[in-house]
Amino acid sequence: MDKDFLLQTETARKLYHEEAADLPIIDYHCHLDPKMVAEDHRFSSITELWLGGDHYKWRAMRTNGVDEHYITGEASDWEKFQKWADTVPYCMRNPIYHWTHLELRTAFGIQKLLNPANAREIYDECNEKLARPEFSARGLMKRYRVETVCTTDDPADSLEYHRQTAESGFEVKMLPTWRPDKAMAIEDPQAYRQYIQKLEAAADCTISSYVDLLNALQKRHDFFDEMGCHLSDHGINEFYAEPFTEAEVSAIFRKVLDGKAPTRDEVWKFRSALMLEFGRQDARSGWTQQFHYGPIRNNNTRMMRQLGPDTGFDSIGTPDVAASLARFLDRLCVEGNLAKTILYCINPSDNEMLATMIGNFQEAPVPGKLQFGSGWWFNDQKDGMERQMNALSVLGLLSRFVGMLTDSRSFLSYPRHEYFRRTLCNLLGNDVENGELPQEEMPRIREMVRDICYWNAKRYFQF
Amino acid sequence: MDKDFLLQTETARKLYHEEAADLPIIDYHCHLDPKMVAEDHRFSSITELWLGGDHYKWRAMRTNGVDEHYITGEASDWEKFQKWADTVPYCMRNPIYHWTHLELRTAFGIQKLLNPANAREIYDECNEKLARPEFSARGLMKRYRVETVCTTDDPADSLEYHRQTAESGFEVKMLPTWRPDKAMAIEDPQAYRQYIQKLEAAADCTISSYVDLLNALQKRHDFFDEMGCHLSDHGINEFYAEPFTEAEVSAIFRKVLDGKAPTRDEVWKFRSALMLEFGRQDARSGWTQQFHYGPIRNNNTRMMRQLGPDTGFDSIGTPDVAASLARFLDRLCVEGNLAKTILYCINPSDNEMLATMIGNFQEAPVPGKLQFGSGWWFNDQKDGMERQMNALSVLGLLSRFVGMLTDSRSFLSYPRHEYFRRTLCNLLGNDVENGELPQEEMPRIREMVRDICYWNAKRYFQF
Amino acid sequence: MDKDFLLQTETARKLYHEEAADLPIIDYHCHLDPKMVAEDHRFSSITELWLGGDHYKWRAMRTNGVDEHYITGEASDWEKFQKWADTVPYCMRNPIYHWTHLELRTAFGIQKLLNPANAREIYDECNEKLARPEFSARGLMKRYRVETVCTTDDPADSLEYHRQTAESGFEVKMLPTWRPDKAMAIEDPQAYRQYIQKLEAAADCTISSYVDLLNALQKRHDFFDEMGCHLSDHGINEFYAEPFTEAEVSAIFRKVLDGKAPTRDEVWKFRSALMLEFGRQDARSGWTQQFHYGPIRNNNTRMMRQLGPDTGFDSIGTPDVAASLARFLDRLCVEGNLAKTILYCINPSDNEMLATMIGNFQEAPVPGKLQFGSGWWFNDQKDGMERQMNALSVLGLLSRFVGMLTDSRSFLSYPRHEYFRRTLCNLLGNDVENGELPQEEMPRIREMVRDICYWNAKRYFQF
Repeated sequence: MDKDFLLQTETARKLYHEEAADLPIIDYHCHLDPKMVAEDHRFSSITELWLGGDHYKWRAMRTNGVDEHYITGEASDWEKFQKWADTVPYCMRNPIYHWTHLELRTAFGIQKLLNPANAREIYDECNEKLARPEFSARGLMKRYRVETVCTTDDPADSLEYHRQTAESGFEVKMLPTWRPDKAMAIEDPQAYRQYIQKLEAAADCTISSYVDLLNALQKRHDFFDEMGCHLSDHGINEFYAEPFTEAEVSAIFRKVLDGKAPTRDEVWKFRSALMLEFGRQDARSGWTQQFHYGPIRNNNTRMMRQLGPDTGFDSIGTPDVAASLARFLDRLCVEGNLAKTILYCINPSDNEMLATMIGNFQEAPVPGKLQFGSGWWFNDQKDGMERQMNALSVLGLLSRFVGMLTDSRSFLSYPRHEYFRRTLCNLLGNDVENGELPQEEMPRIREMVRDICYWNAKRYFQF
Repeated sequence: MDKDFLLQTETARKLYHEEAADLPIIDYHCHLDPKMVAEDHRFSSITELWLGGDHYKWRAMRTNGVDEHYITGEASDWEKFQKWADTVPYCMRNPIYHWTHLELRTAFGIQKLLNPANAREIYDECNEKLARPEFSARGLMKRYRVETVCTTDDPADSLEYHRQTAESGFEVKMLPTWRPDKAMAIEDPQAYRQYIQKLEAAADCTISSYVDLLNALQKRHDFFDEMGCHLSDHGINEFYAEPFTEAEVSAIFRKVLDGKAPTRDEVWKFRSALMLEFGRQDARSGWTQQFHYGPIRNNNTRMMRQLGPDTGFDSIGTPDVAASLARFLDRLCVEGNLAKTILYCINPSDNEMLATMIGNFQEAPVPGKLQFGSGWWFNDQKDGMERQMNALSVLGLLSRFVGMLTDSRSFLSYPRHEYFRRTLCNLLGNDVENGELPQEEMPRIREMVRDICYWNAKRYFQF
Repeated sequence: MDKDFLLQTETARKLYHEEAADLPIIDYHCHLDPKMVAEDHRFSSITELWLGGDHYKWRAMRTNGVDEHYITGEASDWEKFQKWADTVPYCMRNPIYHWTHLELRTAFGIQKLLNPANAREIYDECNEKLARPEFSARGLMKRYRVETVCTTDDPADSLEYHRQTAESGFEVKMLPTWRPDKAMAIEDPQAYRQYIQKLEAAADCTISSYVDLLNALQKRHDFFDEMGCHLSDHGINEFYAEPFTEAEVSAIFRKVLDGKAPTRDEVWKFRSALMLEFGRQDARSGWTQQFHYGPIRNNNTRMMRQLGPDTGFDSIGTPDVAASLARFLDRLCVEGNLAKTILYCINPSDNEMLATMIGNFQEAPVPGKLQFGSGWWFNDQKDGMERQMNALSVLGLLSRFVGMLTDSRSFLSYPRHEYFRRTLCNLLGNDVENGELPQEEMPRIREMVRDICYWNAKRYFQF
C-alpha cells in the first residue's frame, strides 16, 4: 500500500499522481453528524473514531468469532481495539483491510500493518495524535482537502448545526440533504403520528390532511433550499409507482393519523403519491434527487431488539424494480418534472439494468442528467467500483460520471476517494496500455480523470 | 486500434491473422432494409449512413447533453455530424468509440480519431467516398466479404426485394427471416385487426377464426420457405408457456377481432398457443428458431409520442423466464417438434441460466442444436461478448457456437464481426499462453476459431 | 497442465507447492455410494468409472451431437469411451477438459491429451491399471490422501455400509450426512406414503400424525448422530418460511397420508414447518446444516421418462430467495436454534446476496459460523470458484472459509480439490504480486492457504 497502490501501469501512475491525487474532495453524500462539525468534535480515542459506529467493522468482528461484549458491549476502549487488531489479519481481501491501513497511513502517518503484536503501540500513537487540535473533526476534513460535504437530514431538522458551522467561517462547505424517508413510513401509525407532530412543529403549521402534509413539506423544502440544500436522498426498498387517486391517498393519510394500520396496497399507493411529490419539489427547485434502493434491513430480530437499526444486520436484497423504476421516472418526465437524478443499486446484478435505464431519460442541456451512482455500501470496494464503472462505460458515458462519495458516518472515510481515484486511473491506464484507448488521446483522458474526480460533480451539483 | 487491436498475446495475433481475419461473413440475423439492397442504395452523406437511424449514437448524444434538434430534429446533416464529432471523445470506453473508428478505418481508410477539430475534414472525405459507386449498399457488403445476410421480415411481407436481389445476380445471398411478432400483438385489437387484413391480403384468404389464422400463417411460412428462408425470429418480453385449450384460444381470437381488449391472462394464453404453433412450423420445415427476449421498450412516453418506437428509449429488463422457458422448450420436445433454437438474453444476469438451459435439450444429430446466442444489443461489446462466451464455455461447448451476427440496421456494421473475432482469438490466446489450453493442441484451437467464425454457422444453418 | 497449472505467479507457485499441495482432503459433502466403499469396489473399466453416472459428461456428449445409444444406451464400453474421446477435444474451455486430464494424470499417470487417435491406447492402459488392487474404490481414496468423506443419506437408511466400513478398520473416515428431502416431498401423496412406511420400519414405530413424524425423524437423527453424523444437507428449490400453525401442519400431513394431493400453499406451509424442525434438531446436536438451493430439475420430460432423474437435464434456476431465506434464518436465530450453516447457491447472480446474508447471523464463538458454500454444481469450475471466493472476500471473511468439497458420485473427483487449491493460491498470488496484499504478510497468507484448504474444515466440523 505504497504510493503506487492499485496503480498497475505506468499510465495509471501518471494519471493518478499528475491529475487525480491533488484534487479537492466534493463529498456530495455522507452521514456525518453535523453537530460534530459545528462543535469541532475531539475524539477521545481511536476506538471512538473507528469502532464507535462502524457496522462494517462490527460485522467483520462477529464473523471472526468475537463476542458481542467486545464489539458493542461494555468492554473498554482498549479491549475493543485489541479485538479489532486480532481481526484485521483475517480481513485480507476485504476492503476493510485496505481502508484500515489507508486511514492509518493518511491520517496518522502510520505505515505499519495493524496486528495483535503492534496493537498497543498503534493504539497509543493514534490516541496521542487524536489529542492534538489538528485531529478534530474539522481538522480531519481539512487534512483531506474536503471542499464540500452534504449531510443527510430529516425535513423536521432545524439545521442549526449547519447554520452554526457556516457562521463560524469554517472553510469547508457543509450543506444539508433532504431525506424525507420518515414521511413515507406510514406502516407504523403510532410512530408516524409522532413524526407528523415533529414536522408540524418544524413547519409551524397543523397537519390534518394530506394537503396539509404536502404544504408542510414544501415549507421545509423551501427552508432547506434557503440553507443551501441542492440534493434530496431517498432510502427505499422498492420503487413505488402504483396507480392512485388524490382521494385515495388523502383517505389513507387520514386512516393512519387515526391510528389504523394501512394495508400493503395502501402503503404502496401512499408512497407512490409522495415520491411523485418529492420529485416535483426537487424539479421545481433545480435540485438533484438521489435514490438508494434495495437492501433488506434488520434481518436479525434478536440483535435488532438488542442494538437497534444500522448495527450491521443488513444485506443485499433482490427486489425487481426495472418496471416500477421506469414508470416512476416516466411519470415525472411526461409532466416535465424530472429533476437531475442519481440511482444507486445495492445488488450488482442490477448494474446493467440501471446503466441502461438512465439512458432512457437523458436530455439536454445537462450532460449526464441521469446518473448511475457509484458502487454503494457493500459495493464500495475495488471490485464493486470496477463493475459499476465498467457497466456505466459500455452502456453509457463514463466521461459524464459525477464520481465518488463516502456515504459514511466517519471522519476518517475520505481515503475512499483516494481509493476510487486510484481504481479509476488504473482502469484507464490498463486500457491505454493494452491499446483499447489510444495513446494519442492522453490529454483527453487526463481531462476525463479530472472531470470524474472533481469537475463533473462541481458542474453538476452547482453547490 | 491498429492491426493488433484487442490481441494481447502472440497466440491471439496468430489465431486472428492466420485463421479468422479472412473468413467470409455469414450475418444470419440483421435488420437491413431489403429495398436498399435491391436498389443498391447510394448514401447522400455519412450523416445518413451513421446518424439516420442509429439509436446507439442518439443515446450517446443525449447523454452528452446534445439538444434533440441536432439528433433527430431539423438540423442539417453537417450540424448533426458536428454534434456527433463533439460527442465521440466523450464515448471512450463505450463500444461506440471503437465501432466508430473501426468503421472509419475499414470502410473509408481513415486512420484519424474523430473529434471536433477534424470533423469537417472527415465529413468531407467520407462524403466524397460515399459518392463513388463502390460505396453503395452492395459495394459495402462486398467490401466486407459478406457471403449471406438474413433480414428480418413480417409474414405479410411480399419479399419482393429479396426476389429482385436474387434475380439481379448479386453475389451476396440475401435471405428473409420469419418474424411474426405482429401476429402475437393482440393487446391492441384495432391495430391487430388491421394487421390481420394485411395478412389476409398476403395469404390470399379470409381469416375469421383462429384456425384460419394458423392456415394463413402456414401459407406464408411455406412461401418464406420457398424464398429460401431457414430462420424465424421472435422479439418477446417474456416466454409464454401458460396452459390453454384450443377453445379458449379460438374465443380470445374472436373477441379481439370483435374489437374487445383481451385481459392479461388472455394475452398470455393466446401467445402461449401461437408460440407453440410457430415452433411446430419451424420444426416441420427444418428451420432454426431464434428468441430475443427481455428488454423493456419505449420507457419514455414523451419521446415515444414524438419519435415513435426504436429511437433509443429501451433498456435491459429483468423478466424471470427460467421456468416458463423450460416449459416452452419441453412442450415442443415432448411432441418431437423442437427445432434448432437460438436463445438471446438482454440481461447478462441470465447468462448462466441460459447457458445451462440449452444443455437440457441438446440431442443428436445436430451438434449444438440449442444455442446460447451471442451478446445481444447492449451486450454487443467486448465485455458482453466475453461474458457470453465465458458462460457458454464453462457451462456448454464453446466449440459448437455459431458465433456472431450484426443485428444491425446499418451497412457499416460488419466490423462487429472483426471485433468479435478479435475478442474470441484474444480469449483463446490468453488461455494458451497462461497454460489453461495446451500449446500442443494449437491445430485443434485453430480449427475451433475457424468453426466459430464461419464454419459452424455454415453447417448449422445450411443456407 | 503441468505442475504449475493455473499458477500464474511465483507467489502462487510457492503457496501451492509449499503449503497447499500436500494437505489431506476433508471431503465434507459428496454422493459416493457407501456400498462401494464398504465392499471396496473394483471397476470393470474406465467407462464404468467415468461414464457410468457422470451427467456432466453425458451433457457434453449430447451437446456434441452424440447419439443417446452411445451415452446411456446399449453401446459397448469401448464404443462409449470412443464417443467420449471424440468429444473431449470439443470440450476446451469447459472444466470437464481439465478434470479429464487431471484425472488421467493423477490417477493413471497418463500425461497425454485424450483424443480419437489415442483413445484405444488410453482405454487399454486405464483398464489394465483398474484391474490392479490399488485402483479399487478404497485404493483411489488413499491415493488422494482423503482423510474424511461425508456421504449423503436418507433418514431411513440403515447406514450398514458405514458401520461395515468403520468396522473394517479402513483408515479413511466415512461418515453419513442426514438428507431428509423425501420427508418434505408431500406433493405426491402416494410416493410419500411409501416413504413414510420405510421411515416407520427404520424408526421402528408407527407414524400416523405429524407429531409421530417428528418423533420418528428425531429417533433417526439420534441414530445418525451415534453413527458419527455431524452434518445435514437439504436439496431445495426455494427457502420455505411461510407462516403456519401446528394445527394446520398436522391437518396437511393427515390429508396427504389419506392420499389427497396438497395445494401449493399447503406444501409450502408443511415444508416451512419441517425445515424449522430440521434446523432445531441440528442445533440441539451441534451439527452443521447445509442448503443447496435453486436448480430447476428434470426439465426434459421425454428424457425423464426414459432415464429418470439426475441424468443431465437440470439447469440453473432463478428463484428469488432473499426475503424467505432471511426469515428462515431469523426464526431459528430468535429462538436460539441457529446451527452452523452452509448456504450454496446455484445461480452466481445470488453470490452477493448470499455473501451478505451470512453476515447477518454471525456470532461468537464459532468463527465463520455461517458459511457461503463453495461454487456448486455448474459453478464448480475456475470462473465459478473465483466468483464465489471474490464475493466472499469483499463481503465477508475469506480467511474463515471452510473450502472445497467434491459433491461428486465419482471416486475420481478428488483432483477437484487440487483444482480449487491452485485457484485459491493463484488468486492470493496475484494479489501479493500486484500489491493488493502485502508481501510482508506472507506468513499470514501461507496460514490462510492452509486454513482454507484443510484446517478451517477440520476445526469447523469437528469430525
